[in-house]
Amino acid sequence: MEKDRNHNHVEEGCVRIKLVVAYVGAKYSGWQIQEKPNPPPTIQGCIEHAVSIVCGRQVRVHGAGRTDSGVHAEGQVAHMDVPEAKAGLDWRKTLNALLPRDISIMEAGAAPQGFHARFSAVKKSYSYQLWLERNFISPRLYPFAFACGPLNLDLIDQAMSILVGQKDFAALQNAGTDISSTVRTIYSLVRTPSGVLAPGENSLIITVSADGFLKQMVRNIIGLLVEVGRGKLAPERISGILSRRDRKLFPATAPAQGLTLTRIYY
Amino acid sequence: MEKDRNHNHVEEGCVRIKLVVAYVGAKYSGWQIQEKPNPPPTIQGCIEHAVSIVCGRQVRVHGAGRTDSGVHAEGQVAHMDVPEAKAGLDWRKTLNALLPRDISIMEAGAAPQGFHARFSAVKKSYSYQLWLERNFISPRLYPFAFACGPLNLDLIDQAMSILVGQKDFAALQNAGTDISSTVRTIYSLVRTPSGVLAPGENSLIITVSADGFLKQMVRNIIGLLVEVGRGKLAPERISGILSRRDRKLFPATAPAQGLTLTRIYY
Repeated sequence: MEKDRNHNHVEEGCVRIKLVVAYVGAKYSGWQIQEKPNPPPTIQGCIEHAVSIVCGRQVRVHGAGRTDSGVHAEGQVAHMDVPEAKAGLDWRKTLNALLPRDISIMEAGAAPQGFHARFSAVKKSYSYQLWLERNFISPRLYPFAFACGPLNLDLIDQAMSILVGQKDFAALQNAGTDISSTVRTIYSLVRTPSGVLAPGENSLIITVSADGFLKQMVRNIIGLLVEVGRGKLAPERISGILSRRDRKLFPATAPAQGLTLTRIYY
Repeated sequence: MEKDRNHNHVEEGCVRIKLVVAYVGAKYSGWQIQEKPNPPPTIQGCIEHAVSIVCGRQVRVHGAGRTDSGVHAEGQVAHMDVPEAKAGLDWRKTLNALLPRDISIMEAGAAPQGFHARFSAVKKSYSYQLWLERNFISPRLYPFAFACGPLNLDLIDQAMSILVGQKDFAALQNAGTDISSTVRTIYSLVRTPSGVLAPGENSLIITVSADGFLKQMVRNIIGLLVEVGRGKLAPERISGILSRRDRKLFPATAPAQGLTLTRIYY
């Protein structure tokens, strides 16, 4: 990735376009293209394919973050360097005409000077939808929520407040990445609706904003909060477990389908 | 259907169960079962199949209204007479375990004395989601909205107020049903959000409540409102056209996918 950073200038004879992308992740093996024979469908792969058709040559599309297989986005951001001759295109309209229905370009335009989708990002927000029943769920919500059953929301509120701030989140990082630091700052971790739920209200959206996230960190936070809400892990134990930096001490990762990348801040 | 009304007593040795049903209509040829060789999948057919597995014999499920092919529901209501021995079942849990993911029983329980899903209904509400752009739409919204492009909301508000009340809606009824009267009362016809939309706000939900609806009446109302909002039909012409009772004088039926049966009132 350092190579990428050094190559942060716009490609010769090109202009940099910034995209805001929404997708339903169910049918995709995540954002990142997989360079192997018979690669599975990915969001990046679909967009690069569409852009390459328009440009008549392969064009790389750089995402702000790599969402996992099955994770959704409302506000993923990407950039790409396209030939100057194509700068004036209505990229949103053009790409949406070529993309499948479960991927949509919500905004497209010239990127600001020096913009890089990944390295210019200063904050990211994810939301996770929980459904507090087990025996029924609206079929419209089903593909976007984790039907975890009833939770104690007071306990969840306590746990959320403990997780906010600059901390070493190594115990909430899944294996498989090679990064230098596991310290991140969670700016906010809130739920909607807040307070006591009205009768019949069964849906909860948890939104987390941070300067960055470790691998599957949001889904691990949700797995932790659900376990706390079920009364199986006391909130006061969280800080101690975090300090031991051992992923195995915390509960299982929550399922991908409840998670949505909502916004990247620059 | 008169036969049905005469048979409004609970079947011998049975108890009547009331169901509230939600579904994503995309893959179904509407609510009503089709009695023919190789019938297409229907909501009623799926529920009857599940109930019949549980009861060990064919059981009829009566819906409050027949939604068209591709139309969704959040609050369809149905009833069925099941053997007394099955009365104590958790019908919601049992049926949801047997039903496909795009049909869900949201509530199930003993029906009130004399209850009939269709004949006891006093009011029905539908909502229709419009997306006011053509070149992009959130993929999560796409299966549930009509991307009609920009509309003049002042004109739509005028048109909506003209349609409210007791009127002969023959001009907004599609052919194919044999009914005695085309007079219906629209109790309310409103949009959310109301007033002027905020910048970037592109979604509009129109909700209509009436004592009953003629065939495809809601989708015909939406087709009419969209044409008005596009400036192609003046609101002041609506009453005159309605009085001529000719479906061909009004615009095309809006697509099924934007429509949701939201609630049946008893």
